[in-house]
Amino acid sequence: MPLPTRGYAVKSASAPLEPFDFTRRDVGARDVLIEILYCGICHSDIHQARNEWGNSIYPMVPGHEIVGRVVRVGTEATRFREGDMVGVGVFVDSCRECRSCREGLEQYCEKGFVPTYNGYERDGKTPTYGGYSTAIVVDEAYVYRIPAGLSLPGVAPLLCAGITTYSPLRYFGVGAGQRVGIVGLGGLGHMGVKFAAAFGAEVTVFSTSPAKERDARRLGAHHFVVTRDAQNLAPLASSFDLILDTVSAPHDINALLNLLRRDGVLVQVGLPEKPFEVNPFSLPAARRKLAGSNIGSLRETQEMLDYCAAKGIEADVEVIPIQRVNEAYERALKGDVRYRFVIDMASLR
Amino acid sequence: MPLPTRGYAVKSASAPLEPFDFTRRDVGARDVLIEILYCGICHSDIHQARNEWGNSIYPMVPGHEIVGRVVRVGTEATRFREGDMVGVGVFVDSCRECRSCREGLEQYCEKGFVPTYNGYERDGKTPTYGGYSTAIVVDEAYVYRIPAGLSLPGVAPLLCAGITTYSPLRYFGVGAGQRVGIVGLGGLGHMGVKFAAAFGAEVTVFSTSPAKERDARRLGAHHFVVTRDAQNLAPLASSFDLILDTVSAPHDINALLNLLRRDGVLVQVGLPEKPFEVNPFSLPAARRKLAGSNIGSLRETQEMLDYCAAKGIEADVEVIPIQRVNEAYERALKGDVRYRFVIDMASLR
Repeated sequence: MPLPTRGYAVKSASAPLEPFDFTRRDVGARDVLIEILYCGICHSDIHQARNEWGNSIYPMVPGHEIVGRVVRVGTEATRFREGDMVGVGVFVDSCRECRSCREGLEQYCEKGFVPTYNGYERDGKTPTYGGYSTAIVVDEAYVYRIPAGLSLPGVAPLLCAGITTYSPLRYFGVGAGQRVGIVGLGGLGHMGVKFAAAFGAEVTVFSTSPAKERDARRLGAHHFVVTRDAQNLAPLASSFDLILDTVSAPHDINALLNLLRRDGVLVQVGLPEKPFEVNPFSLPAARRKLAGSNIGSLRETQEMLDYCAAKGIEADVEVIPIQRVNEAYERALKGDVRYRFVIDMASLR
Repeated sequence: MPLPTRGYAVKSASAPLEPFDFTRRDVGARDVLIEILYCGICHSDIHQARNEWGNSIYPMVPGHEIVGRVVRVGTEATRFREGDMVGVGVFVDSCRECRSCREGLEQYCEKGFVPTYNGYERDGKTPTYGGYSTAIVVDEAYVYRIPAGLSLPGVAPLLCAGITTYSPLRYFGVGAGQRVGIVGLGGLGHMGVKFAAAFGAEVTVFSTSPAKERDARRLGAHHFVVTRDAQNLAPLASSFDLILDTVSAPHDINALLNLLRRDGVLVQVGLPEKPFEVNPFSLPAARRKLAGSNIGSLRETQEMLDYCAAKGIEADVEVIPIQRVNEAYERALKGDVRYRFVIDMASLR
């Protein structure tokens, strides 16, 4: 029997979020039913609510930084028990058969993973609804265990902003003795700083906002550079091993590429609406690489959560009731949040 | 005493190449004097002769695919003897002190290598003149040994087109079991096909010219795809490990990036005049990389020459007298050469 669920949805690209009643599927044999306690507001929620990527399905219940409590367990589910604290991230299923799925890199599923919202289940027709809601039903294989010792609101953004920065820093082997740049100090950027510093790198934050220097240093950055003035970048040419670019506003990618030393890599995790204009000399001049990375795998996300528990790493959040979600979107677009809004879902009950 | 030398030079961005008399420095203690026998015509000769990269110094004697015979040896030079067949490539010196030089990657010298032409010696003021000339004086450390068994005109293009494709294919570990795409079947592309096939990869040539299919297969390609029709690319999405893009005309980089499978890399070795427009979703979707590569090191260039001798690999060339160099430029721009013009310098004596 479908499960009545309350959420907040947008019904068109120009509509605000408003209350929306819908149903979740009944708990299947391998599913768990999760009472959602907190859900982060990701910048991609705003992009998709407003159809800025051109692929939006309405009505849309956004939200893919979900933390909650298991309240029912399917008959064949074995990983969780009622009462367990769990998380759900950007995807809730994948084909499980392609090379990427078989290799445990579900985020690169060749058939496309099933997104937590604004997508369809593997049947190709049942829309998925996200975490701005009271509950969600998810196959247990796509659910993470939240380790003890972390604050639940501070964990929610780890499920997207956290893993999106953790994964490329690990994949490209960031560690002691390396110089790492983090471009943009927002939801992703502030997690990038925490992780890069925790991994032992010498971290420089590049930001357009001089006012963020104090925070950057508190988060673990060793240096802070205001990018508005090109003069600030010139002395740093060819000196970084890795730059993590979290900015989704238009910006000059060549100015950043030129900061990479030989064999350095710029990892793009922000998703601007317009193409990057890459100067044909920027990359060959020093065998540089421009790479992209997309969230992380099931295994790696769990690894990150466990790492965060061991190191005491959480996102910096501002908790809001869901009734203030539209205002939060406007503030997030202005960068007026340090560094992630998280909805307290108790406000929806 | 400076050595009188005859060459062909351009005197402005709009001038043709014409005879030009100049002097080379006398043979220093560690120099060798090389009688130039052949010099390839590289596309970058045309770019620079016409100041299309905006950094041209006139008068300019182009040419950096040089093959010749040692005719004099400096008092402290030990690597070569009179009569040895030698080559000179894209650079004739570098700082020898930076990290890249110390690591034997002189092509990425942090102070900028000394280009064989259109640059200045390490003194910062003596212009360098290239291989469209009767002789050249080079520090022996920057001179390659030409192994026996190869035809000299077919060797000349290895010094730029050859090493520019060999180096990234080696750096990114191309080998058996991999699918490699070579984009553009010109001077660089035809060498890329030969090397990728020799390394055991399954090679696909992407070209705008259906007429080149026969040649592509003769050179070692297993597949040939005409890129003008986007329908030809769709079935190949996400199927290549590495794509070597040799095209310096404007083209759609995203159509190529989408052909890469997860963790694949597109290596850009062509240098178009305008920026690449990289769709922000192209790279993150499959953790793809866009990389650049610039020629190769002293060590690697010698390694390549020895490899070519062992495998019988040469460039396909059309030998011309220097009096036809201006015509050759026009033909090269139209792609009317299979696959490299090489000037027979006997025509200049």
